[in-house]
Amino acid sequence: MKSIADSLKDRASIDHSGNSGAKKSINIGVVGYGYWGPNIVRNFSIIEKAGVHTVCDYNQSALAKIKRNYPHVAVTPDYKDVISSKEIDAVAIITPVSSHYELAKKALLNGKHIFVEKPFTATAAQAEKLIELAEKKKLKIMVDHTFIFTGSVRKMKQLIDDNILGDLYYYDSMRVNLGLFQGDVNVIWDLAPHDFAIMDYLIKEKPVALAACGKAHVDAFEDTAYITVYFENNMIAHFNTNWLSPVKVRKTLVGGANKMLVWDDLEVDEKIKVYDKGIDVRTKEGMYKMLVSYRSGDMWVPRIDNVEALKVETEYFTDCILNDKIPINDGHAGLRVVKMLEASNGSLKKHGRMVRL
Amino acid sequence: MKSIADSLKDRASIDHSGNSGAKKSINIGVVGYGYWGPNIVRNFSIIEKAGVHTVCDYNQSALAKIKRNYPHVAVTPDYKDVISSKEIDAVAIITPVSSHYELAKKALLNGKHIFVEKPFTATAAQAEKLIELAEKKKLKIMVDHTFIFTGSVRKMKQLIDDNILGDLYYYDSMRVNLGLFQGDVNVIWDLAPHDFAIMDYLIKEKPVALAACGKAHVDAFEDTAYITVYFENNMIAHFNTNWLSPVKVRKTLVGGANKMLVWDDLEVDEKIKVYDKGIDVRTKEGMYKMLVSYRSGDMWVPRIDNVEALKVETEYFTDCILNDKIPINDGHAGLRVVKMLEASNGSLKKHGRMVRL
Amino acid sequence: MKSIADSLKDRASIDHSGNSGAKKSINIGVVGYGYWGPNIVRNFSIIEKAGVHTVCDYNQSALAKIKRNYPHVAVTPDYKDVISSKEIDAVAIITPVSSHYELAKKALLNGKHIFVEKPFTATAAQAEKLIELAEKKKLKIMVDHTFIFTGSVRKMKQLIDDNILGDLYYYDSMRVNLGLFQGDVNVIWDLAPHDFAIMDYLIKEKPVALAACGKAHVDAFEDTAYITVYFENNMIAHFNTNWLSPVKVRKTLVGGANKMLVWDDLEVDEKIKVYDKGIDVRTKEGMYKMLVSYRSGDMWVPRIDNVEALKVETEYFTDCILNDKIPINDGHAGLRVVKMLEASNGSLKKHGRMVRL
Amino acid sequence: MKSIADSLKDRASIDHSGNSGAKKSINIGVVGYGYWGPNIVRNFSIIEKAGVHTVCDYNQSALAKIKRNYPHVAVTPDYKDVISSKEIDAVAIITPVSSHYELAKKALLNGKHIFVEKPFTATAAQAEKLIELAEKKKLKIMVDHTFIFTGSVRKMKQLIDDNILGDLYYYDSMRVNLGLFQGDVNVIWDLAPHDFAIMDYLIKEKPVALAACGKAHVDAFEDTAYITVYFENNMIAHFNTNWLSPVKVRKTLVGGANKMLVWDDLEVDEKIKVYDKGIDVRTKEGMYKMLVSYRSGDMWVPRIDNVEALKVETEYFTDCILNDKIPINDGHAGLRVVKMLEASNGSLKKHGRMVRL
Repeated sequence: MKSIADSLKDRASIDHSGNSGAKKSINIGVVGYGYWGPNIVRNFSIIEKAGVHTVCDYNQSALAKIKRNYPHVAVTPDYKDVISSKEIDAVAIITPVSSHYELAKKALLNGKHIFVEKPFTATAAQAEKLIELAEKKKLKIMVDHTFIFTGSVRKMKQLIDDNILGDLYYYDSMRVNLGLFQGDVNVIWDLAPHDFAIMDYLIKEKPVALAACGKAHVDAFEDTAYITVYFENNMIAHFNTNWLSPVKVRKTLVGGANKMLVWDDLEVDEKIKVYDKGIDVRTKEGMYKMLVSYRSGDMWVPRIDNVEALKVETEYFTDCILNDKIPINDGHAGLRVVKMLEASNGSLKKHGRMVRL
Repeated sequence: MKSIADSLKDRASIDHSGNSGAKKSINIGVVGYGYWGPNIVRNFSIIEKAGVHTVCDYNQSALAKIKRNYPHVAVTPDYKDVISSKEIDAVAIITPVSSHYELAKKALLNGKHIFVEKPFTATAAQAEKLIELAEKKKLKIMVDHTFIFTGSVRKMKQLIDDNILGDLYYYDSMRVNLGLFQGDVNVIWDLAPHDFAIMDYLIKEKPVALAACGKAHVDAFEDTAYITVYFENNMIAHFNTNWLSPVKVRKTLVGGANKMLVWDDLEVDEKIKVYDKGIDVRTKEGMYKMLVSYRSGDMWVPRIDNVEALKVETEYFTDCILNDKIPINDGHAGLRVVKMLEASNGSLKKHGRMVRL
Repeated sequence: MKSIADSLKDRASIDHSGNSGAKKSINIGVVGYGYWGPNIVRNFSIIEKAGVHTVCDYNQSALAKIKRNYPHVAVTPDYKDVISSKEIDAVAIITPVSSHYELAKKALLNGKHIFVEKPFTATAAQAEKLIELAEKKKLKIMVDHTFIFTGSVRKMKQLIDDNILGDLYYYDSMRVNLGLFQGDVNVIWDLAPHDFAIMDYLIKEKPVALAACGKAHVDAFEDTAYITVYFENNMIAHFNTNWLSPVKVRKTLVGGANKMLVWDDLEVDEKIKVYDKGIDVRTKEGMYKMLVSYRSGDMWVPRIDNVEALKVETEYFTDCILNDKIPINDGHAGLRVVKMLEASNGSLKKHGRMVRL
Repeated sequence: MKSIADSLKDRASIDHSGNSGAKKSINIGVVGYGYWGPNIVRNFSIIEKAGVHTVCDYNQSALAKIKRNYPHVAVTPDYKDVISSKEIDAVAIITPVSSHYELAKKALLNGKHIFVEKPFTATAAQAEKLIELAEKKKLKIMVDHTFIFTGSVRKMKQLIDDNILGDLYYYDSMRVNLGLFQGDVNVIWDLAPHDFAIMDYLIKEKPVALAACGKAHVDAFEDTAYITVYFENNMIAHFNTNWLSPVKVRKTLVGGANKMLVWDDLEVDEKIKVYDKGIDVRTKEGMYKMLVSYRSGDMWVPRIDNVEALKVETEYFTDCILNDKIPINDGHAGLRVVKMLEASNGSLKKHGRMVRL
């Protein structure tokens, strides 16, 4: 198997510029140092060709924490210090989704590449405007779809691309836990972006419609929701998201005509199980029940690369900027995920009616 | 905890007749000796106040098997021998659903009580006619909702009735495996009757609408399907059914305001786990995120009665007949399940649109 | 993979007689109808070339149960009716170990082949006498080491014989549960015969010594005991047996130079896991820690034949008698297990001192 | 339940000095920055009343890493800079066991309290000399038995001290994985110190003898070893340690007369399971088998404090020094563990013969 790094190099090989090699490293500015920001700072700090220049947060104790851990990094409560800095090449926007568009637009207008926490934007229209702006300014957008850089998702991608699974029948994901209410979005916007981004990466066919249903039990936002996604062919995808589950579940089943797999992200050593199991359909004569039968063979647990996904992703972002490559998780990938989120909310309002994508 | 037997006695206590004690035991005729029939025969054989009189199957090798194992039981390839026998009090109909209505109607018309394999009938209209007929003839209908006689479902019933879980938020079931295609029904009609019957038994509030979506990958019948069920209040229920799963899953989550539980029927010793976990909502002032917080306490695995459910159910059927009691799983319970199945098919045809119950 | 039946035919291929084909089927007499007896009767009943003729038990309710389930089988409270019957070819002795020797001796003296519940006898001396007697009378002894006929143990045998695991390092078994005290033997005699018989079957090298330690907490017999077994080479085996465990564990680790496996008999679908993991030892130069490193590859769960072991074993017994073959689980295999049990008791008395085998 | 911090305050309540309150905080010097050292430095850095003053390692890249992460901390390749510094109150010795004695002795002679990585010393004689020296100099010794500060071990301690389990029958631990060979010690010295320290903490009765057996498969040191420990009463303890296991297991069973528990340290949410299961012994009359029967009740998973054990331990060390308390994991506790390790090696050399403690 090709390493993740190698396979990324292949994918991102289109070089639009003639000036490769001009710049040797990039300076990152980070806006937002809450739950996820520290991981972004830590990973950009250890990359050879990148460095964290300034971190912004309106929370003073967050700034104090940065100072203690990274004495050489500048801190500021004002995001304008970040997006206007001459020394900063790219801005990582790690704030609530409602602020993404404004921050991203300003950063792009100031000539900065952007790395944006998922979901990309609060609306598809916002995402489209940012994509247009970035293209005009010849700047990169990367949306932080971290999971597609995990060894598990990479392995599934390989199994699907190599046609090990055969034609895909279904993609069935369960992502539930006892979740802190976000205050401004429902459980779909909190949990499903992971799965939508993973499915978008894994499956070439694009979804054509979806239906979502759910309930709000504690406040105004749905805490329990189910989404079904339809494709041109007879693939079907389903997502079970829940903030009120007593147990944490992170399990995805992918069924194909040849093989099927289970991805359990909470397993330590056996995250991906590939089953040589299925249904054999024989001749169409005679009594029907005789014709469809089980096929049951060995099960196989491939070794998974154990590298930190965010490390791979931040290095990849650096590489895309320095060598003018188009990221696989660019603004368009971000937009596709936002369209599904938007359609989910639309369907929820219509009590689960199907919504075209 | 009261024993299952005791609790059934309490529930079925309405005695409509004045002739209790007249009859001492009943004779059962069984129609259908395929996959499930042998279990029915075995259980009715060991009950003190019941006995198997005749078994009918059109398959000669099935009849030979009965003869070998139960030399004293009469066998016949013609169901009319069963429903017309003077010595038979009740008929167990253990055949494909398409034949239930005709067999049940004839048995009732011949004055026999009936025990019918689930799902009760192929349409709600059929179920209603049978209920009416049985009431006119003062005969009993029991639909074989076996699961409600398991220790696990009984324990959940107790936890819900005693308000241990508090107000219910959701009921989320996953019942998937590599399944043999039935040839005449889809995966919902094959797998969901179990869960619909369990939910019908556990939850007092009645569902008002449902939506179902699914896909047929191998032949004309859906093999992968998802059903969402709505209630008057903000309860929501969801059912994941799949004949194309490489792994067998039998897992139900029930979330309440006070406690939540997980029922995993494939666990040997820890089928029911009760979690003292949830969400606490505090005052409505200040920043929202602060107000909703986790509550996490002990987990508790109650001991479950290990008796065979079908043994309890067949004894209960015998008791209902001998002592003129109304079964909890009577024709009306069967009808409620069939209505949900029928509505599921209706919703499938409309691409998942919500259908009133 | 060859089927179990085929591989047994290969193994038992030495035909000592010239009279093959003379007899077409055998009659079995069964002595003892307690916990295990019903399984023996059920399996011998469904074999084409065998039949159960008479069952003996001193318990009248056991006899009544046989009459009910097998009306054509004769019953008796006196074992002499079985061993002296002209029509019986072989006697299955399914009684407590203390009675095995006397019953087996008398059966052999009456010209009956014997099938004896494990452990074979209460002492090695008894086993040796029975072997000698059977050889003199040209009769077969089979000791009921059921586990060696399971798909799991057969698969492990194949993996070891095909050198997939490489040179064996250790065999480590844990067999614990909340166990009913036997009243006449300790936990080693109750649980370890399974594991000793499995190891004896799997591993060509024969053990040379063992040490056992344990404690009796509830009455005079050890309920918690550990046995270590030594071989000529540097293989080591270990057995953890316990009647006072709150959880049931049936787990065996087998480590080899090339691969390692885990057998968990309580798993439904993944009983055998084969790990491409190990230690690589490099050159002996430089700092030592650098030289021994992990090797970690895929894991593989082979499909296991799901046939009932006792069915295979009883058919094999029938085949060995009709075609004069030497069973792999003959008296000598039974003797080897009894020697280990006897040595375990010897070591227990000497506070765990090593005892030669 | 009392918090861990509170319960530690109670236990360490003997104050030998009259000068409490004299000193407000302590300076720590750390010798050794390999695998475990970074955790020690990180935890002492965040304690309010302690600070890391100097870290020593002979490896230049280790020193560079400290400089980068802790710019204010002094670094040195020479341990003498640490033990002779006037500003350092206590020395943490986080080096291979072979160097513990010399470093600890010199630190004590220089008037420093010591915090020593487990196992305390390479021989019991060394441990005794250090204890004597520390007492003479009125200095504290703490041995880094980290596990006794975990929520799981604390919960077990409480269950045992409150007599929830009743009289203890056995303590059975399995700690196996694919392990890097240490180069200078066998698997017992690598893995068993954890379990010996945990058992020493949990169980009041002291062991009187032990027996160890094992095998070296790859080089001169045993990589697979089993230790049985005897007590005055009929408690028995057993330890399964293995560097050649394809799977990681961290499981301990503790059986008592009233209840039994399983501690699985690899479980995320259900580390401790308490079973209301056991054996009931009834009257001594009649047939024996009737008298011992199962008792099987609910199972209970207590919530476990999720605090980092090393954080609790380093705070506790600081507290013991500032307030002149005797640590529960003092030199004597370290000595008891070393005695068991020494006895294990002694027994290994005698092929598993029992060795008095």
